[in-house]
Amino acid sequence: MSSAYEIAKSARVAGNILKTLSNESRSSILYKIHDSLSAKRDAIKVANEKDLAEAETSGLSSSLLKRLNLFQGDKFETMLQGIKDVADLQDPVGQVKLARQLDDDMMLYQVTAPVGVLLVIFESRPEVIANITALCIKSGNAGILKGGKESVNTFREMAQVINDTIAENVTETGVPVGAVQLIETRQDVSDLLDQDELIDLVVPRGSNALVRNIKRNTKIPVLGHADGICSVYVDEFADLEKAKRISVDAKTNYPAGCNAMETLLINPKLNHWDDVLTNMIENGVTLHVTSEVRDSYQQKLGERLTDDMKSHIVDVNEKEDFDKEFLSFDCAVKFIKDTQAAIEHINEHSSKHTDSIITENNENADKFLKGIDSAGVYWNASTRFADGFRYGFGTEVGISTSKIHARGPVGLDGLVTYQYQIRGNGNIAADYLGAGGNRAFVHKDLDPTKVIL
Amino acid sequence: MSSAYEIAKSARVAGNILKTLSNESRSSILYKIHDSLSAKRDAIKVANEKDLAEAETSGLSSSLLKRLNLFQGDKFETMLQGIKDVADLQDPVGQVKLARQLDDDMMLYQVTAPVGVLLVIFESRPEVIANITALCIKSGNAGILKGGKESVNTFREMAQVINDTIAENVTETGVPVGAVQLIETRQDVSDLLDQDELIDLVVPRGSNALVRNIKRNTKIPVLGHADGICSVYVDEFADLEKAKRISVDAKTNYPAGCNAMETLLINPKLNHWDDVLTNMIENGVTLHVTSEVRDSYQQKLGERLTDDMKSHIVDVNEKEDFDKEFLSFDCAVKFIKDTQAAIEHINEHSSKHTDSIITENNENADKFLKGIDSAGVYWNASTRFADGFRYGFGTEVGISTSKIHARGPVGLDGLVTYQYQIRGNGNIAADYLGAGGNRAFVHKDLDPTKVIL
Repeated sequence: MSSAYEIAKSARVAGNILKTLSNESRSSILYKIHDSLSAKRDAIKVANEKDLAEAETSGLSSSLLKRLNLFQGDKFETMLQGIKDVADLQDPVGQVKLARQLDDDMMLYQVTAPVGVLLVIFESRPEVIANITALCIKSGNAGILKGGKESVNTFREMAQVINDTIAENVTETGVPVGAVQLIETRQDVSDLLDQDELIDLVVPRGSNALVRNIKRNTKIPVLGHADGICSVYVDEFADLEKAKRISVDAKTNYPAGCNAMETLLINPKLNHWDDVLTNMIENGVTLHVTSEVRDSYQQKLGERLTDDMKSHIVDVNEKEDFDKEFLSFDCAVKFIKDTQAAIEHINEHSSKHTDSIITENNENADKFLKGIDSAGVYWNASTRFADGFRYGFGTEVGISTSKIHARGPVGLDGLVTYQYQIRGNGNIAADYLGAGGNRAFVHKDLDPTKVIL
Repeated sequence: MSSAYEIAKSARVAGNILKTLSNESRSSILYKIHDSLSAKRDAIKVANEKDLAEAETSGLSSSLLKRLNLFQGDKFETMLQGIKDVADLQDPVGQVKLARQLDDDMMLYQVTAPVGVLLVIFESRPEVIANITALCIKSGNAGILKGGKESVNTFREMAQVINDTIAENVTETGVPVGAVQLIETRQDVSDLLDQDELIDLVVPRGSNALVRNIKRNTKIPVLGHADGICSVYVDEFADLEKAKRISVDAKTNYPAGCNAMETLLINPKLNHWDDVLTNMIENGVTLHVTSEVRDSYQQKLGERLTDDMKSHIVDVNEKEDFDKEFLSFDCAVKFIKDTQAAIEHINEHSSKHTDSIITENNENADKFLKGIDSAGVYWNASTRFADGFRYGFGTEVGISTSKIHARGPVGLDGLVTYQYQIRGNGNIAADYLGAGGNRAFVHKDLDPTKVIL
């Protein structure tokens, strides 16, 4: 077994080659990987059945077993199609973002380029290895991949197929051996997290605990989110129907999603605000309310408050519940006196993922959109729209709650950075103003979409 | 003295307010700060003289004393003008980068937003505090500033003027107290580097040792460069005159600059390659050469090699000199057999700052531009062009050798990030394909430059 340094170093070398290859080369190896995986279907199935048998013996839950099973329904075929879909995407590399004439015979270009070496850590779904391989190679990055241990046999078999295909086609496509490396143990991950000189970005795709643990243990930038604590603020000037629809959608459409609402902030100056809560209860949500909310709600409803409804109202734990991702049909609820107070609550408690205001008042909406410090700031829309597919980004790499590099849903362009190119004619600084000479810079911008380098 | 947590927390609160203010408000406080500093010229001068006297007593070098003296020549006036220049720049915040229709009544915008809280660490030049204050406020970020201890009296006086001005005008401009905080001790810095939950970006402006030390001691992203190890590769197909001009400019125009050349890679297949070295020697450069270069050069020159020239040729330390920033009229020199070998040397040894190829061969140039993994990749131009002013970026925040967020010379836009806004009409995910409904997304892009939010 290679050391973490050797793995990272060979990924670095592979990445330096990958970044020079044409889109055609990068895409063609993906088609070949598609074909090899398809041809090796039986061997992969045997490996997957071994994983399933071991998982069953160890008493894994049926929902986890379902995730492990690569051959349930058309999962395997969907995975294969996904590789081709990524291959067919527009090249994220080599896009000219800025074209500026510095002088008659000197041009400056800002050009997208691969980040370099990615360490991608994911859990047990075996199809993810194909998806990640496709994303890495398409974006010109070398990838070091670590999957969940429950799928180790499937991963090993698929990694073997992928690496054999790369090795067999290295002359034709130029994609180097080492472009995709599979690692198997947690110790490997932990050692790799120290290789901040060689690895450029960590992409954890898995539980919040996984992401949090990685963030805590590396100096390498991490693309991802540990928490999705999203809030909806129902303003004094909300449209009641919109408030009802959005609060239920944001909470119940997919409660396990990171873009689900966890906190509902209600302005009690809104007429019939209690209808928003009643509607949530009727849709199966358990409300974790402050005593103020409980008292007012009980008073509003009076006789209409049934025992069944009461069973959906519990006391909020103010110290914890506003910083908590329930990931269930539970929601923390609190009164908020105005938009400014909502902004302050959210900037203090949210995980900088996505937060929404429901209001018909433009001024309050504008204040909220400007004041919230999260990747997504919404007005009269459900937080559930925070998603790469819905944003139209194609394949989603993940959702980031970092403040820099990439925020919110991240498409393939989250795996690229940029470089500045200067193309000159022997130009030297000493000829120009500021460094001893008399020539002035032209600094004339050209349309970058018209530039072909 | 407040704790690091309290300082960072109050900066966070101030940043959350700053990000909601209009460009006019942010610029107007800069004009007021300009006026106050101008009015307090005498008091600042007294403080600066105190620093100078203390520095002289402690035996500071005359060049450092010169840097400390804020009133030498028109330095103070230039500093004041700089504040107005930043105030007059285009607003980096609120720029629409993407405008996409998601549905008839739902729009997605990607909008630039301040990063949040910056920790800016700089050395002794007292005028930098005004520059940084202007950059932070203009970009809507709260700044925690730490200057070199030699200028402590000047910094204190100026920080007092700046903070008094902010406090006096808080009602009019909205810029909050806490927007700019000065800290004084190294312990403060060290404690603040732990506040990765509250501080978003560290910007060290100073020596490489300072930057390296900070990078080693924080999980907060760092915008800057520890080293500027730039290389020039003179290809077999170089134009000799261009090679001579560029190698001398890159090395001698400003050897202390991070964009100066430290390594010269020469392809000995170039006719008269020795002229490149002779020209450098004649311009006062000391060449640190491999034995191969030394032997070939001596053989080429024969009798023409004078003792004076010989004194400018020393043996390279191969283990160290190719990873070293000389910051002087010294240059490491080595033979390279082709463009691929040059790429490999540079990707291994450079600090990912700026590297240049000199060639008339398009294929080799293209290979180099694609293969080099640095922020700047140049063709027939001096590495000295790696500079915000020369790129036309206006005020330079710094030069970054990070792979993500901002690379190369960074203008004001390195201090902003982006947020996604959705403006809807009560839209819920459950109505759309993929989340239970039948509506398809429109995903129609509009021209973001025409959008006014």
